[in-house]
Amino acid sequence: DEDKRWSQDEEYFRSYADVSVHEEMLSDTVRTNAYRYAVLKNYEKIRGKIVADIGAGTGILSVFCVHAGAKKVYAIEASDMAEQTQRLVEENRMEDRIDVIQNKIEDVEFPEELDVIVSEWMGYCLFYESMLPSVLHCRDKWLKKDGLMLPSVANLYLAPFCDEDYDNRLDFWTEIKPVYKVSMESMKPYAQKCIASHVHVNCMPPESVQAHAHVIKRLDLKHVPISDLQKVKSEFRFRCFGHSEIHGFVTWFTVDFPDSISLTTSPYTEDTHWAQCQFYLDAPEKVKQDTTITGTFSLTPNKDKPRFLDINIEYQFDSGPRRHKYYYMNDCIT
Amino acid sequence: DEDKRWSQDEEYFRSYADVSVHEEMLSDTVRTNAYRYAVLKNYEKIRGKIVADIGAGTGILSVFCVHAGAKKVYAIEASDMAEQTQRLVEENRMEDRIDVIQNKIEDVEFPEELDVIVSEWMGYCLFYESMLPSVLHCRDKWLKKDGLMLPSVANLYLAPFCDEDYDNRLDFWTEIKPVYKVSMESMKPYAQKCIASHVHVNCMPPESVQAHAHVIKRLDLKHVPISDLQKVKSEFRFRCFGHSEIHGFVTWFTVDFPDSISLTTSPYTEDTHWAQCQFYLDAPEKVKQDTTITGTFSLTPNKDKPRFLDINIEYQFDSGPRRHKYYYMNDCIT
Repeated sequence: DEDKRWSQDEEYFRSYADVSVHEEMLSDTVRTNAYRYAVLKNYEKIRGKIVADIGAGTGILSVFCVHAGAKKVYAIEASDMAEQTQRLVEENRMEDRIDVIQNKIEDVEFPEELDVIVSEWMGYCLFYESMLPSVLHCRDKWLKKDGLMLPSVANLYLAPFCDEDYDNRLDFWTEIKPVYKVSMESMKPYAQKCIASHVHVNCMPPESVQAHAHVIKRLDLKHVPISDLQKVKSEFRFRCFGHSEIHGFVTWFTVDFPDSISLTTSPYTEDTHWAQCQFYLDAPEKVKQDTTITGTFSLTPNKDKPRFLDINIEYQFDSGPRRHKYYYMNDCIT
Repeated sequence: DEDKRWSQDEEYFRSYADVSVHEEMLSDTVRTNAYRYAVLKNYEKIRGKIVADIGAGTGILSVFCVHAGAKKVYAIEASDMAEQTQRLVEENRMEDRIDVIQNKIEDVEFPEELDVIVSEWMGYCLFYESMLPSVLHCRDKWLKKDGLMLPSVANLYLAPFCDEDYDNRLDFWTEIKPVYKVSMESMKPYAQKCIASHVHVNCMPPESVQAHAHVIKRLDLKHVPISDLQKVKSEFRFRCFGHSEIHGFVTWFTVDFPDSISLTTSPYTEDTHWAQCQFYLDAPEKVKQDTTITGTFSLTPNKDKPRFLDINIEYQFDSGPRRHKYYYMNDCIT
């Protein structure tokens, strides 16, 4: 299993050596400011302490930790980006405080125990790219008993949604006729099938959410065992807000830091580069106020490509038929 | 070599089974109308004739050919899209005129010789995805001596360009400081390196072009031997329009149909989904009026993945050093 995870690594780490992903992450001020404020506000727990920044990228979180008074920060970066991280450390004259280490975190031997682990490990649908097991592996091996995890809690949410734009997108095929004089209505069921066949990553307006969100999983990052990440499974029961069409289910996540700082990727707040993940049904279902949607959401790392996800959703509208849909969350997300 | 080409096919054909590529191509009215007008205007050469539509997709070009009076159209589509092509034929009540065949064109046995081959085979930089050899293979085997190729000519162009937005993009790293209080100037050379390390596909404004375009290759599609596609190589000599910075070279193409109908993807006309392809230098070069840029552009299908391209550009500004840059045009184009 370890072998399989790392068979994807070359490609995975290479993708982080390109500058555009770092531009995207730094442009996401919701993300980067949440970490910045969390680190600075928790300076009492960081000042004079030993910190590891796992998946350091440009190294910006390491610099924040120095700003908060860390005695030593180990900036761990497996990709070739590490050379660049070192340059950033030098540019900011923090060579005495930040040690850049180009290695997989599992292979790093620290000269001392860690007081703090900071990491921005979250992927789409929280678990895509599966960086969390590596972070927890380091926690179990190197974090002091009273050490601090930043973030310290993660929550994954699920809700049914209505896509107001769905019919418009299908009407594309009706609008072909006046332009090219060819009927293309027969493409509509095919287009529907394609939409439902992969996971979409898009920001949606808050009014699309059609019931109170359900917490699929709450992770206490200080204590959750790695084995808990092998399968995330949760039963849900939604009561719909009102008359609507349900096009599928949407997930988002939050991570919390001590001192009431939270980074949320929900549709109710400012957009982040994680957006939200949509899982479309094969066809929309009509609902009214208090229609119940019950079912089970389960998520596991793919056996062959553990950075990708297998997601199964079983669902039932009121006493209608119980249905089941499988989604493979690979690099074809759109 | 044949084996290698087809080792990529499963993935290649699957990508065309998704509806979104067809939405993109049909939304490109420049493309689709050029084919429509070309087919309709050439109706005298199509009426009562036998046509093959290679890579039929939705089947829209086949329907155009029936509109132009074709006696029989063979719509060849290797991907699972073919089922959908058949439905489109039925929806337009053309079952007696269009035969949908799900197969690779190389494996198709036609019951008769062809009068016309119509195909939309062009990829980014004309040759990306390498569908043209398959079209020419069919031509050599099945097209009548006096048969018609639609399109009948293709031209690939090259020009030096100035990217007005280049400095702005790099300034991103200067703008980090006031936002997060971290210096990131050291990221600039890295960002430059990343920009220059892969091929970009973007529409550029016409004023970006800094010299008269050079025709790298003109293909007479009725007569060009398949072997000519194994290596496209051309010497160029540009005389710059005026004071500017050259950030790299840009390619675009046109295809021509009989009766003066042309589909162009140049920056001088309406945008198409092919946009233009940019090949950035490691660092911009300053030029003035009549600065000459000489060199050689060469392009070959990649040995291991023939749908991808190896592109080599040698170039020299006036009597400066002769430089060389290699680009791998794979699915990481952005």
